[in-house]
Amino acid sequence: MASEKVYRASTTAPVNIAVVKYWGKRDTKLNLPTNSSLSVTLSQADLRTLTTASCSASYPEGDSLLLNGEPSDVSGARPQACFRELRARRAALEAADPSLPKLSTMPLRIVSENNFPTAAGLASSAAGFAAFVRAIANLYELPASPAELSLIARQGSGSACRSLFGGYVAWRMGSAADGSDSMADQVAEASHWPEMRALILVASAAKKGVSSTSGMQQTVATSGLFQERIKSVVPRNMEIMEKAIAERDFERFAEVTMRDSNSFHATCADTYPPIFYMNDVSRAAIRAVEAINAAAGRTVAAYTFDAGPNAVIYYLEKDTEAVVGSLYSVLSHVDGWKSGAVEGLKANVSFDESVAGLLKNGVSRVIMTSVGEGPVATEEYLVAEDGTPVKSSSS
Amino acid sequence: MASEKVYRASTTAPVNIAVVKYWGKRDTKLNLPTNSSLSVTLSQADLRTLTTASCSASYPEGDSLLLNGEPSDVSGARPQACFRELRARRAALEAADPSLPKLSTMPLRIVSENNFPTAAGLASSAAGFAAFVRAIANLYELPASPAELSLIARQGSGSACRSLFGGYVAWRMGSAADGSDSMADQVAEASHWPEMRALILVASAAKKGVSSTSGMQQTVATSGLFQERIKSVVPRNMEIMEKAIAERDFERFAEVTMRDSNSFHATCADTYPPIFYMNDVSRAAIRAVEAINAAAGRTVAAYTFDAGPNAVIYYLEKDTEAVVGSLYSVLSHVDGWKSGAVEGLKANVSFDESVAGLLKNGVSRVIMTSVGEGPVATEEYLVAEDGTPVKSSSS
Repeated sequence: MASEKVYRASTTAPVNIAVVKYWGKRDTKLNLPTNSSLSVTLSQADLRTLTTASCSASYPEGDSLLLNGEPSDVSGARPQACFRELRARRAALEAADPSLPKLSTMPLRIVSENNFPTAAGLASSAAGFAAFVRAIANLYELPASPAELSLIARQGSGSACRSLFGGYVAWRMGSAADGSDSMADQVAEASHWPEMRALILVASAAKKGVSSTSGMQQTVATSGLFQERIKSVVPRNMEIMEKAIAERDFERFAEVTMRDSNSFHATCADTYPPIFYMNDVSRAAIRAVEAINAAAGRTVAAYTFDAGPNAVIYYLEKDTEAVVGSLYSVLSHVDGWKSGAVEGLKANVSFDESVAGLLKNGVSRVIMTSVGEGPVATEEYLVAEDGTPVKSSSS
Repeated sequence: MASEKVYRASTTAPVNIAVVKYWGKRDTKLNLPTNSSLSVTLSQADLRTLTTASCSASYPEGDSLLLNGEPSDVSGARPQACFRELRARRAALEAADPSLPKLSTMPLRIVSENNFPTAAGLASSAAGFAAFVRAIANLYELPASPAELSLIARQGSGSACRSLFGGYVAWRMGSAADGSDSMADQVAEASHWPEMRALILVASAAKKGVSSTSGMQQTVATSGLFQERIKSVVPRNMEIMEKAIAERDFERFAEVTMRDSNSFHATCADTYPPIFYMNDVSRAAIRAVEAINAAAGRTVAAYTFDAGPNAVIYYLEKDTEAVVGSLYSVLSHVDGWKSGAVEGLKANVSFDESVAGLLKNGVSRVIMTSVGEGPVATEEYLVAEDGTPVKSSSS
């Protein structure tokens, strides 16, 4: 049996950070959202998942996933939905062309590694499920477009559907009960507005209180303000955001980004019992961004927070000194600054003492990155030719 | 001139802490709110303003206010509106009865003292303006009811209108453009539900970031969620709250109190730029209340936060041990515990380590109080018979 062929395909997939947030499901089984959302795909040079999908008749029965070296349970409804959808498409190809190997009948062995710490609130599940779906689709040689695969990845993790594209990506909520129109599309390529940068301030106390999966449904069920967000606030934010991206209008992009993050966290605070993802360090980061913009005399930076305390600060390459200089001056002691990118930058703002103190004590590392491309097929494999899992050479 | 008679009247007035919050004005000049609100008047044994209003033909020209020993500016529109309204009513009495002394023509000298630190976010302006208006009304021997005086106090500080009554007090937003129906009324006497207690956790970093006066108008102008709060959330909360008070239903009272506080702070967080009154210590107080209720197996405590980080925790006298015992166990080192009231109380909850740590380091004192009565006329004067300001004997 060990001589049976092992079929393999590898891909990388990116993290995305929403500027109009996904929060709330109208259908928890199909991961159908209560509102559309929009994100920036971040460069895989800095943050990426590498996933190899393999299958072989020689594998023991049952699909498996090895995530960052640890066996991960795939019996849950979400990975099972992805397996089922992808196998069905492969089986259809095999039925149409009997010369194809019967991959759809073989156990799958998936091996995946992030080049960044999981669970730090960095949307690892988005990159993870996007890579998972893309890798199996590559293995199965499915002719599916990224949009079609986004329908499948969505069922693994909602925001994963946006990580199938690079650049600026919308997830259209759709209206069909079966979810067939709830999928991602690319609003603009990364090359349309390649100057977009992101500085992530990782807050030390990064342990999540409430998972986003259960948190968002508590918000849907109990917040008296939530319906207004999904009916009015988000549709307006989506419209302005798409226009801002089309016109490369950073001021507008930034205002909607900050307002939408505020609105999302407001509905969390309005949940009963209330959900708090931001802490005093997060709020200090907001005050720092406000001070940076005030000093610049225009909006050069925009904060946004996902379901955790980390601040993601978007800015344009030309404003690196105005944005990064002052933050580097108080955070030069932490890891993550790119050598060559921060030396010599002047600090244009001297932060309020309490803001500087909170950031110094509360930020454990930074990540400097930028807008980037979607999943890329690669010849680097986390499964050897004989089917043995191997470690990545790059992570 | 020094032999001219000095006319005097003194009153005390209470602090009130809203359980359905006032946040937003539809008319900033008349202090007309965007929504009705409801509060509990707190006992003046623990928190009160003492104010003496005096007038004399011998006083130098111009009205004056001495607040906690410091001259305070009364040239602003708000105190001026109160002076004008009260003088007009006195002048009408004098016109109808020429035998009355012409107090309305004399300069006013007001002297006021709080028995608690001002500016600790303890709604001192509410007690202050209520005492200010009530003292002058007493001096002028106006036949005005508390409700009528609430119309005047409202123009000094919105929430002051609720401090003219004891017990459980609603401020009806009204609809008239001139504000003539935007006034307070008593939902229930303190004696209707005298078991209501309040434990205030004063957070150290009590400096306000944004004044409530400017903060609320920023919310009105920029929050996309605020209209939903005033149109739907508050009217529903008012209705449930009045019923809960009528039926002495603490569980319902508590849930609306907590939800309304959450909703109010959510609209602050949704303001652009966002306003944060709560900090990590405030959120630890929320988690502590949730743990206390979980341990009790029912809702025995309710948190609420005004425009500052202090937690006000309402509970019933019978649940003192369940609520106070555990908080005392982590905060026994701070001032404010009433001797005799906390000794021997058992701690029923052991708080999460981070919650206990935040409370221990962040709470600087506590105040133990209860529902109480409205303003009370007193023979204690802060102005001597010759018109000289004197210090209170009791503060």
